[in-house]
Amino acid sequence: MTATASAIPHLIIIGGGFGGLWATRALAKSSVRITLIDRSNHHLFQPLLYQVATAGLSSPDIAAPLRTILRKQQNVDVRLAEVTAIDVVKRSVTLDGASTLDYDYLLVASGSTHAYFGHDDWEPHAPGLKTLDDALAIRRKLLLAFERAETATSEAERDAWLSFAVVGGGPTGVELAGTLAEIARHTLKQEFRHIDPSKAHVRLIEAGPRVLSAFPESLSAKAKAQLERLGVTVLCGAPVADISEHGYQIGETFTPCRTVLWAAGVAASGLGAMLGDAAVVKRDRAGRVQVNADLSVPGHPNVFVAGDLAAVMQDGKAVPGVAPAAKQMGAHVARNIKALIDGKATAAFRYADYGNLATIGRMAAIVDVRGFKLSGLLAWWFWLAAHIFFLIGFRNRIAVLINWASAYWTFQRHARIILGKHD
Amino acid sequence: MTATASAIPHLIIIGGGFGGLWATRALAKSSVRITLIDRSNHHLFQPLLYQVATAGLSSPDIAAPLRTILRKQQNVDVRLAEVTAIDVVKRSVTLDGASTLDYDYLLVASGSTHAYFGHDDWEPHAPGLKTLDDALAIRRKLLLAFERAETATSEAERDAWLSFAVVGGGPTGVELAGTLAEIARHTLKQEFRHIDPSKAHVRLIEAGPRVLSAFPESLSAKAKAQLERLGVTVLCGAPVADISEHGYQIGETFTPCRTVLWAAGVAASGLGAMLGDAAVVKRDRAGRVQVNADLSVPGHPNVFVAGDLAAVMQDGKAVPGVAPAAKQMGAHVARNIKALIDGKATAAFRYADYGNLATIGRMAAIVDVRGFKLSGLLAWWFWLAAHIFFLIGFRNRIAVLINWASAYWTFQRHARIILGKHD
Repeated sequence: MTATASAIPHLIIIGGGFGGLWATRALAKSSVRITLIDRSNHHLFQPLLYQVATAGLSSPDIAAPLRTILRKQQNVDVRLAEVTAIDVVKRSVTLDGASTLDYDYLLVASGSTHAYFGHDDWEPHAPGLKTLDDALAIRRKLLLAFERAETATSEAERDAWLSFAVVGGGPTGVELAGTLAEIARHTLKQEFRHIDPSKAHVRLIEAGPRVLSAFPESLSAKAKAQLERLGVTVLCGAPVADISEHGYQIGETFTPCRTVLWAAGVAASGLGAMLGDAAVVKRDRAGRVQVNADLSVPGHPNVFVAGDLAAVMQDGKAVPGVAPAAKQMGAHVARNIKALIDGKATAAFRYADYGNLATIGRMAAIVDVRGFKLSGLLAWWFWLAAHIFFLIGFRNRIAVLINWASAYWTFQRHARIILGKHD
Repeated sequence: MTATASAIPHLIIIGGGFGGLWATRALAKSSVRITLIDRSNHHLFQPLLYQVATAGLSSPDIAAPLRTILRKQQNVDVRLAEVTAIDVVKRSVTLDGASTLDYDYLLVASGSTHAYFGHDDWEPHAPGLKTLDDALAIRRKLLLAFERAETATSEAERDAWLSFAVVGGGPTGVELAGTLAEIARHTLKQEFRHIDPSKAHVRLIEAGPRVLSAFPESLSAKAKAQLERLGVTVLCGAPVADISEHGYQIGETFTPCRTVLWAAGVAASGLGAMLGDAAVVKRDRAGRVQVNADLSVPGHPNVFVAGDLAAVMQDGKAVPGVAPAAKQMGAHVARNIKALIDGKATAAFRYADYGNLATIGRMAAIVDVRGFKLSGLLAWWFWLAAHIFFLIGFRNRIAVLINWASAYWTFQRHARIILGKHD
């Protein structure tokens, strides 16, 4: 560190997701030193993660190294490390329990993970989807289920291996269930000699009254109909009471099922709890930090939170935990930090909601853009265009387009490679 | 199993590599039931495995599910399982220690793995490359080494993390070393703030007098010169005496080095030892089975071996353990089994050597086709065309071409994603 460098304020950004990366980029031309810390080496395009889990795309299609994305931004130092402590009084962050970095400004954008509402014992039997490693574990589990069914020695065992359940009727659950049905009905056709994969049961289980509850009721109903057309059984108002390696329980009914996926609960990153006394820095039930209007943390005007970790209310509703909101928050925090450096006042954040889209499966999606509603094939093309457009990196866009075009015409999913020793 | 089916002879093929898959395909129209057993769900295009290890390609680019490849061949039953026993007297194969399958004919084509010549304690410090899982583990190790160098707290530590050694100057070792030098010199340019990746030392260590010893001496020398041009230090006549997590020892000299890769030894699959009494079924030092001229196992005319597991001498030289030899053996065994079924005599195998190619790195390769020798850029184009041509599956060829074209122009390697928790 040179003498000049130390005069420039130091901003630590925790998390290279949409919030952290958009803040970093917005400060490319500012006189600030940035250390961007992430525990993985890549930015992940999470909206397409379910495609990796269901063998449609491979990991590098939806991820790019943070160093590569930021190679030309000279004021950024990327660090592959886990944050193990934050001291908002001393203004320092501890990495891997070993080294400590001081900051002038801090942005915590460490996102969220899946949660089991106090049923952590369900996790081994119902994996969730938040990282590339999760996606590869789910892919493995799905593909092995059909292999196990093929060699099952009893009908009951075969049926249990051909039974698939996705718990949670939000966007991820709907995507997983819809794609699973497509795999069973089309992708695996002709590949097995002792089972008919299209006889697989795919069930989507939602505790609330409808799927995709963030959408208007009419679109939820359309989504349910599209799921059923793809071959998914949709169970609403069905809270899961237990999950084991043998199956799941709803009310008094136990269903044998060897493959349960979890898409029901989201909990904010544990780093929120390190930002100060719980009486001052309040967190909601999911662990999200209740930030000030300018996204700073109460009591610490130099500490900000963006993305899924931030609980922001607007017009009486919570700003949703989606990529556009995280990007907007990240960019807003960047503006506020610039203001503070320049001795100016920070501004309140306001989420611009450009609409809501969800994909369901082959040629099926729903779109709600400021009251303009679409469903079915047209919505699916809209969803496809939006997601290709927002994918980071030129190469990835082309590769993803080719994989999808090929998957679309052939019903094949090219990434059906089981990694890791089978056991 | 119907009554008619059981009248048709049953062939078990162990291994879905080049030998097993080519035998399977050659019997598509024969009246034989085939069970193809592999412990992974995919056929792997092993000649490009080093590209996955060095982050140029992703797993699905060079692998395709065996079920997909064989979906239209109705006389094949694909089984994902590990063979745990073979009984050539009872004519049966045991899968996963659990179920047993009887056979009329058996083809063992389970290939080879890397070996440490009695130094198994080196394995954790010097991983080898034979499966996709190996490739991903090596990719992780390589990419993390640069991350560790970036945060090293002493110059000695930094140098050790920026020191890379590849043990073994055969085709795999040369490919790994050449590509590693390219990554350090070009791919990672501008990405780090505290190290200069191009200062990395890449050493290729060969115990024998020259690299790529299967080629004529003049081409070996050209390969060495091309490696040095790419930035690799080539050490010949340098047998490694020890490898630890801190580095490696050659003679009296210890070199600190955190990343050692193993490309030196090959041992045949352990299944060779299950084919009968060692006095009758002889195996060479690498564990390869010394088969009869028709590729059958001595004493068992219905049991065949093909590919890397077979020791075949021709004109006083060993048939090399390369993909074309395995394919030819697989197809030959298929013909011999058809002959046996038809009550005819089997034929002796003869390897048709169409030439030898090895790639070294960006625009560098050597080619020896029946005495016609090429090196450098032209040889590289030749190698590229041959490998793209032989890649299985239309989609993969296009995807690989695009990845390579993009890597070629941008010096980028798109698959630089570290999977698994860092620690």
